[in-house]
Amino acid sequence: MTAKTKSWILMATGRSPTNIAVIKYWGKRDEALILPVNDSISVTLDPDHLSATTTVAVSPTFDCDRMWLNGKEISLSGDRFQNCLREIRKLAGDVEDEKKGIRIRKEDWQNLHVHIASYNNFPTAAGLASSAAGFACLVFTLAKLMNVNEDHGKLSSIARQGSGSACRSLYGGFVKWTMGNDASGSDSIAVQLAPESHWSDLVIIIAVVSSKQKETSSTTGMRDTVETSPLLQHRAQCVVPARVLLMEEAIRNHDFASFARMTCVDNNQFRAVCLDTTWTWQLIFLNTTRQIAEACFLMKWIIFEVAYTFDAGLNAALISPNRKVAGLASKAAICFPPSPENDLASYVTGDKSIIYEAGLQSMKYVEALPPPPEYKDESPCQKSTRDVSYFICTKLGTGPKVLTEESLALINPTTGLPM
Amino acid sequence: MTAKTKSWILMATGRSPTNIAVIKYWGKRDEALILPVNDSISVTLDPDHLSATTTVAVSPTFDCDRMWLNGKEISLSGDRFQNCLREIRKLAGDVEDEKKGIRIRKEDWQNLHVHIASYNNFPTAAGLASSAAGFACLVFTLAKLMNVNEDHGKLSSIARQGSGSACRSLYGGFVKWTMGNDASGSDSIAVQLAPESHWSDLVIIIAVVSSKQKETSSTTGMRDTVETSPLLQHRAQCVVPARVLLMEEAIRNHDFASFARMTCVDNNQFRAVCLDTTWTWQLIFLNTTRQIAEACFLMKWIIFEVAYTFDAGLNAALISPNRKVAGLASKAAICFPPSPENDLASYVTGDKSIIYEAGLQSMKYVEALPPPPEYKDESPCQKSTRDVSYFICTKLGTGPKVLTEESLALINPTTGLPM
Repeated sequence: MTAKTKSWILMATGRSPTNIAVIKYWGKRDEALILPVNDSISVTLDPDHLSATTTVAVSPTFDCDRMWLNGKEISLSGDRFQNCLREIRKLAGDVEDEKKGIRIRKEDWQNLHVHIASYNNFPTAAGLASSAAGFACLVFTLAKLMNVNEDHGKLSSIARQGSGSACRSLYGGFVKWTMGNDASGSDSIAVQLAPESHWSDLVIIIAVVSSKQKETSSTTGMRDTVETSPLLQHRAQCVVPARVLLMEEAIRNHDFASFARMTCVDNNQFRAVCLDTTWTWQLIFLNTTRQIAEACFLMKWIIFEVAYTFDAGLNAALISPNRKVAGLASKAAICFPPSPENDLASYVTGDKSIIYEAGLQSMKYVEALPPPPEYKDESPCQKSTRDVSYFICTKLGTGPKVLTEESLALINPTTGLPM
Repeated sequence: MTAKTKSWILMATGRSPTNIAVIKYWGKRDEALILPVNDSISVTLDPDHLSATTTVAVSPTFDCDRMWLNGKEISLSGDRFQNCLREIRKLAGDVEDEKKGIRIRKEDWQNLHVHIASYNNFPTAAGLASSAAGFACLVFTLAKLMNVNEDHGKLSSIARQGSGSACRSLYGGFVKWTMGNDASGSDSIAVQLAPESHWSDLVIIIAVVSSKQKETSSTTGMRDTVETSPLLQHRAQCVVPARVLLMEEAIRNHDFASFARMTCVDNNQFRAVCLDTTWTWQLIFLNTTRQIAEACFLMKWIIFEVAYTFDAGLNAALISPNRKVAGLASKAAICFPPSPENDLASYVTGDKSIIYEAGLQSMKYVEALPPPPEYKDESPCQKSTRDVSYFICTKLGTGPKVLTEESLALINPTTGLPM
């Protein structure tokens, strides 16, 4: 390791998308390595609306590895972070920055510490796969900084050890996480089924039911399901393999009806095994309370051929075949009125043009919408004003990208601390 | 057939209990014969609080078979009624009433018509197994009138052809419906595991969430589950058999903890396979909306070792090991305040002494109860006043009984029509 001065700082910034599973991952066969009991398939969401941005800095002046998430320092002592850092360091290559006169040999990385700053442009730990985007971004950006010369498949197997579904955020479009067979986990990696351009008409609307953190982590929930649900192994071994093939075929053929049907039935079965879980089901059940209310109106959307899927948190994702159907769906969704203090701009985020095109230009159009039928006999104050915090209108997105513009870095290049 | 005059009427009146399954029946392997995909176990409820009363009358002056349910004439043309009437007529014996000078030979029954009047002392078709009590009572009372000389096992296999779970209402206490193997259904019968006296401490509180009729019949729901749930057959073949053995053991040993645990997990799994159903799940889901709200507070009762179980309708049944625990549970339950027009007497029915002993002597005690924790941050009008229509406090009950007192008959002995 050489440099003109001892105080140099080298940085890289990356941005990774989040993803939502259409064939669900629920249950690990190996807790430490995060190996799943079945394959899963996801769609990657547009990083402009849902993504993690991470800056990683290295300097000989750093005493230890440190990380800040959304501006707040967090501990890196957990196994998940340690596994990712260790595996990436093993693969680190030589780095040379002639302009700054910095040269790092691959063996130096073992003794250099990193500062990591990460920021999610959407609620953390509320079921929107923030840990997926976060670990994918951490691994991707560390790999860039450390000049790791491996394909995204290898990186996905490292991100997987941070958070299982993170491996699927290493690619854009449609992604499959193959469960693999090897005990080491080396073949439990993500592969891209199709890029986002393959089916660019799809519109995804996320109803953020609560931006509060989940009460049970997915990790605890899955463990309880593996330990107590008599139905889970049957699902994993006898049901999911055929669904994965059908889903791949539906994606290949742009067959939205099959895609939507498979998405909905697998979502239902995922929740079914949660319900079949002795301990956690109680918490899932609690979490479900508001989701059920959502589901009541979401169901109607099926007649529009809209697919819905929940994650372990409180939010619902709706996938429409095109903007026109998405506009119809958004009209139904917005029947859940925003809080009085909200304007339309803060109630619908992302690609607002979808709802404008559907004729909803301002809150007065929203307020004039009739309530969903099942709410008609409720008194006005029982119309669940706060059931949906806000909507995110988005689409399929790309995989991780390096952000070269210095103004996007989250770490001060002089102090090595978050901006 | 002889009689002094042609205008005689002969009647019998019976009363049959309803039952609630603790190991669930969900799914038929034969739709016509009503043969289930797995064994089930139920508790019979006290007929003083939940039962059907049926009077059957026969007279040579009756032109056709007719039936009145809760005072309203209903059609007997359905297969289910026809199967029960045909099977019972086949077994009919000679009847002689010396006082009235009536003599009916067994072959006469084929040409004699019956009038049937039935009355439920609880809401019909809202998930409280009204059809179970009703068909059990119909078959039992017809058997008495027609002097059928068969044991209750045989009668249960006839009642089963009216409504599957009706076979379990032929006995008091704890009852198992063995699925049987024979294609004719002859061995798909109910057997008593233990009489009500075996475990008389148990208290059952039913929260009647809605007395409206169900939106989907159990028949339709089961058929959809059999046709579309990939998890149902696994449940039926690989999960339920072991649970049935454990439940039988728990009942034999008065082991309430195991009994409660098995009741809850099997209820969850029943709902899980409903959720895993492609079509009906949507309706079940709608029905579930309010149940979920119930479940949130019912869950707390588990810490008191209270078992909960739902049926396909909207109501919850709670089983407590004794009156003291039931009193605690009722306090939690009554946090869901009754409508303003209700007094305590109409809000809690059945054995009210349980709630009086728990310190709830009048509505002002009920109104002073704190709301359940998860309702604390809701505005007062969102406290779901109408979630529970009323409670029924009850206990284990006896099987069908003949009612000899003439004043209890539902048919006028002179006109042959409902009173």
